Amino acid sequence: MTQTIHSGAPAFPLDQWYVAGFAWELQDVPVARTLLGHPVVMFRTADGRVAALEDRCCHRELPLSCGAVEARGLRCGYHGLLFDHGGRCLEIPGQERIPAKACVKSFALRERDQILWIWMGATPDSKPAGEPPAYAVHSDERYRFGGGVYHYDAPYQLIHDNLLDLSHLGYVHLKTIGGNARIHMNAELRVTQQGDVVTVVRHMPDSDPPPTYAAAWPFKGRIDRWQEVEFHPSHVRIWTGAMDAGTDRLDNPQREGFHMRGFHGVTPETETSAHYFWTIATNPHPGMEDPTQLVIDQTAATFEEDKVVIEAQFRNQQRFGARPVVDIHVDVGPNRARRVIERLRAASARAREACEA
Amino acid sequence: MTQTIHSGAPAFPLDQWYVAGFAWELQDVPVARTLLGHPVVMFRTADGRVAALEDRCCHRELPLSCGAVEARGLRCGYHGLLFDHGGRCLEIPGQERIPAKACVKSFALRERDQILWIWMGATPDSKPAGEPPAYAVHSDERYRFGGGVYHYDAPYQLIHDNLLDLSHLGYVHLKTIGGNARIHMNAELRVTQQGDVVTVVRHMPDSDPPPTYAAAWPFKGRIDRWQEVEFHPSHVRIWTGAMDAGTDRLDNPQREGFHMRGFHGVTPETETSAHYFWTIATNPHPGMEDPTQLVIDQTAATFEEDKVVIEAQFRNQQRFGARPVVDIHVDVGPNRARRVIERLRAASARAREACEA
Amino acid sequence: MTQTIHSGAPAFPLDQWYVAGFAWELQDVPVARTLLGHPVVMFRTADGRVAALEDRCCHRELPLSCGAVEARGLRCGYHGLLFDHGGRCLEIPGQERIPAKACVKSFALRERDQILWIWMGATPDSKPAGEPPAYAVHSDERYRFGGGVYHYDAPYQLIHDNLLDLSHLGYVHLKTIGGNARIHMNAELRVTQQGDVVTVVRHMPDSDPPPTYAAAWPFKGRIDRWQEVEFHPSHVRIWTGAMDAGTDRLDNPQREGFHMRGFHGVTPETETSAHYFWTIATNPHPGMEDPTQLVIDQTAATFEEDKVVIEAQFRNQQRFGARPVVDIHVDVGPNRARRVIERLRAASARAREACEA
Repeated sequence: MTQTIHSGAPAFPLDQWYVAGFAWELQDVPVARTLLGHPVVMFRTADGRVAALEDRCCHRELPLSCGAVEARGLRCGYHGLLFDHGGRCLEIPGQERIPAKACVKSFALRERDQILWIWMGATPDSKPAGEPPAYAVHSDERYRFGGGVYHYDAPYQLIHDNLLDLSHLGYVHLKTIGGNARIHMNAELRVTQQGDVVTVVRHMPDSDPPPTYAAAWPFKGRIDRWQEVEFHPSHVRIWTGAMDAGTDRLDNPQREGFHMRGFHGVTPETETSAHYFWTIATNPHPGMEDPTQLVIDQTAATFEEDKVVIEAQFRNQQRFGARPVVDIHVDVGPNRARRVIERLRAASARAREACEA
Repeated sequence: MTQTIHSGAPAFPLDQWYVAGFAWELQDVPVARTLLGHPVVMFRTADGRVAALEDRCCHRELPLSCGAVEARGLRCGYHGLLFDHGGRCLEIPGQERIPAKACVKSFALRERDQILWIWMGATPDSKPAGEPPAYAVHSDERYRFGGGVYHYDAPYQLIHDNLLDLSHLGYVHLKTIGGNARIHMNAELRVTQQGDVVTVVRHMPDSDPPPTYAAAWPFKGRIDRWQEVEFHPSHVRIWTGAMDAGTDRLDNPQREGFHMRGFHGVTPETETSAHYFWTIATNPHPGMEDPTQLVIDQTAATFEEDKVVIEAQFRNQQRFGARPVVDIHVDVGPNRARRVIERLRAASARAREACEA
Repeated sequence: MTQTIHSGAPAFPLDQWYVAGFAWELQDVPVARTLLGHPVVMFRTADGRVAALEDRCCHRELPLSCGAVEARGLRCGYHGLLFDHGGRCLEIPGQERIPAKACVKSFALRERDQILWIWMGATPDSKPAGEPPAYAVHSDERYRFGGGVYHYDAPYQLIHDNLLDLSHLGYVHLKTIGGNARIHMNAELRVTQQGDVVTVVRHMPDSDPPPTYAAAWPFKGRIDRWQEVEFHPSHVRIWTGAMDAGTDRLDNPQREGFHMRGFHGVTPETETSAHYFWTIATNPHPGMEDPTQLVIDQTAATFEEDKVVIEAQFRNQQRFGARPVVDIHVDVGPNRARRVIERLRAASARAREACEA
C-alpha cells in the first residue's frame, strides 16, 4: 500500500528530480505511472503545459488517469470533477459549491531536453532546488537518437549495478555490443568520484569491433574502444564508442569515430520495481547508410537481455533471502554508487524526521 | 480462507435471501459459486429439484462440483460418494456402513421467477423467514428480457453505489444510455426510504434520446425521461424509460413509451469480490423491429463499462489505503443504502454473538 | 523464502535419496529444479559426469541455471564465474585471486537405471547412506517404456494418497484404465508393510478389460486383473496387468498376460507443490502392433486426470482450512504411508536438532 511509503523512513533519496517520462509520451491522453511509491497521473493541456497529480479523485477514488484531458485540466471519468494543473477542483457537475478540501496533491513536473522530470520531496513543503539537469545530447545536431521505457520487476539499484559494471557485456550481450569477454574483463578500470557523481572509465585498445559497431561504422580493422559511465543518483550517462586502432586520443572528448551516447533514467516505482527510461544517440557516418535505427534496435535488444538477467537475479535474491555475497574486481563502481544512494537516503530520512518532529 | 468468514463478526447482512444464480444456469452439470465467503455447489436433479451444498466432499475434500449429477443427488468425482439434496451421504461405494458424520452442509435454495435465491443464515439453525422476493417482470408478457452473470474484483457495495447514482451515465456510458452529462448532473433527485428500501427518482424532461433509446423506440424528437432506482439489501430494481417530451405522466406507473426494467442481484463473493446477476427487460414497439437483443447487448456493454470503472476504483482504494473522501450531491442515495447495510450487518453480528454465547 | 526450509524442523523426511529427474533430461544445457525447498541446478559435462549445485552464483546471485555448461563445469551468465562439479569456483574472469568463500553448495547426484537421484541431508555433513535404489525394469529387455515429468500445485503426499488407492480409477479414469467402478470399489484389498515399504494388492478376477487393456492385448473376453502398489518413501512402484479370466496365477510374479509397470518418483518441491517423475513400461504382444506408445499416451492422459483432481482437492483444502474428514475403507494404504513419512520426518527433525544443539 502506498501509505507506508509516504511516511516513516524513506526508502529512496528524496528532494531530487527524478525522470518521470519523455516529452513525447504526453499527448492528448493522461499517462499513469507510479513513481517512488506514489501513483501519479501526468497530462499535457492543449496549451502545452504539463502537470502531475496524485492519481486518485478525491470524490470516489477512481484513478484520474481513467479520465479525459480538457483545456483547463483533467476531468474524472466517473462523475466529472475537473482538476487544474495544481490539483484544484474547478468544477463539480451539478453542484454550485466546491468544497475547499476537494483537491488532489500535485507534484512539480518539468520538461527539459525532451525529458520529463518530477520533484519528489522528503517533506510536504519541499520545493524544487533549482531546475532539473540538462541533457544537451538530445538537441545536439551531430546526433540522432531514439529510446524507450522499460518496466523492471526488480529494485532500481540492480539497474545501477548493471550500468556501472560493463564487464558483463562479454557474457550477456555477445550478439550486439559484447565483443571478447576476456578483453572486457581484463580492461583496466578507472573509478573516480566527485560529490554524488561516480565515473567509471575503461579503455579497450586494439580489440575486435562487436557486431553493432561493425554494422554502423566503416572501421578498417581492429579498434580502440572507450566506455565512460557517469552515475548520477537519478540517472546514468554512458558514452561509449571506438576509433580505428592505434590512436592516443581515447581520453579526448573531441575524439573522432563511432559514438553511442546513452541516457538512462532509473526511477524506483516501488522498493521492488523500477522504471527504466533510456535513449541512445549516435553520429551517422556520412559515407554509410544511416545506422540510427539499427543502433536503437540493437540497444533495445541489449536492454532486453539486461532485463532478463536482472529480473532473474532479483527473483533469486528473493527466494534465497539475505545471504552473504562475494565481491569481485568489477564491483568498485557499483559499490560506490550504492554508498552515494545510501548517504542521500539517510539525508532524506533526517529531513523527514526533522519535519515530523 | 473460508473459516474467518464463518465465525466472528459477519462482514455482510445475514439471515437474508441472496441471489445465487438464474434458473437457466442449472442444467445437468453442477455449478460452483462462492457466496458470502461460502464455496457452494448448486445442482438440479432430473425431477427438477434444485439444491445447494457446501462444495467439499467430507472424505478427501475434492470440490463436489467436480462430480456428476445423478437421479438421487450429486456424486463425488474422486471416490464416488453420493450426496442427496440435503447433503446426506446415500452411498459409499464398496462400503456397507455409512458413518453418521458422512454428510455435507446444505443451504436453502429456492427458484422463483427464474431467479435462484439462497438463504444465508447468521447462525447454524437459521431458517428462511418466508419465501424469497417475487420479480414479476420476468413473467410479464409485455416484456422480453435477457441477462448475464458478471464477476467483480471489487466489494459489492461499490456496485450499489454505482446503481444508486445514475449521474455517472453522462461520463461512463456516453456510447449507449448516457446522453448529455450536464442534464444528468443537474436533474432533480428525490431520495426516499421505507424500511430497508431506498428509492432514488430522477426526471429529465425535454432531453435528447441517448443512442440505445433512439435505436429502440420511434421517438418524435426530444424526450421526457425517468429513472427509478429501488434499492433492496440483496438486489436493486431499476426502471428507466422515456416518452415523447411534453407529458406530465412521468410519475405514473402506467406511463407509455419505451421501458427498460433492470434486475440487479448483487451478492458478495468475498469481502473484496462480488457476483452481479442482471437481467434487462424491455417492451418492443409493435411498429419497429424487436429491439430486445439490441437492448440486452447495449446493456451488457454498459455494465462492462461499469465493471471497468468499479474495479479500477477498488484497485485504487487498495493502493491508497483508507483516506478521506469528499462527498458530493449525488451521494445521498448511495450513503443511505450503506447505512441500511451497516444496520443489517450489525443485527446479524448480534444474532451470531447471542448464538455463540 | 528458502531459508525457512533450511533450518528448523524439516517438513520432509531427509537423509534420503529423492528422484531429481531422468537421465535424458540432462543434455548440454543446465536444468533448474527446486527440490525439497532447495533451488538446484543440475548439469552434465561432456565427459558424462552429472552434478547438482545450489542455483545461485555467490557473486551477484543470478541463478547458475542462466549460465552455460563447459568442459570443466558451469559458467555464470552474468560475469562469467566458473564452478566445478563440487561447487568450487575455478575462475573469476579478470581477477587472479579466487577467494576461498567463492563457492556454491553442492549436492550428491547419482544416475542409476536412467533415474537421477539426489541426496537431501538433514544436516550439513550428511553423506549418502549407500547407493540409490535400482530400478531394473528400465533395462529389462521384455519391456519398453517412456515417461514424463509433471509439476503439481499440491503437496506430494496427496500424490501418494492417489497412487496407493486405486479405487478412484472407476471414477476418475473411465476413459483409459478405469473399468467398472463397482468392481474396483468392491475388490478385496490386502495391505501389508515391511519397514518403510507399504504394499497394497488388489485382485479383480473376471472383470471387463478397460479401454487401454483391450487396445494393447488380444484378450479373449473377460480378464483376471491385478494391481500391486509398492510404496517407498521417495517413490512408488505400481505393477498392474491382466490375463484371460479363469487363472489362479494372479499372485505369481511370473504370471503371463499384459503388464504395465509404473515408476512414480514423488519429490516435494515445496510444502505445497511437488514434482512427479513417471515412467510406464509394458510388454508388447508379439502378435499385435507395438502398443508402447499407446500405453504411454493413455498413461499420460490418466496422470493428467489425476493432476486435475489432486490440484482441485488441494485448492479446496486451502480455502476450507483444517477441518475434519471422514475416512473410508480405501484409506488403509494411504494412511499407513502417511505414518511412515511422519516417522521418517520426525527422525530427520531429531537428527537436525542434535546437530544444531
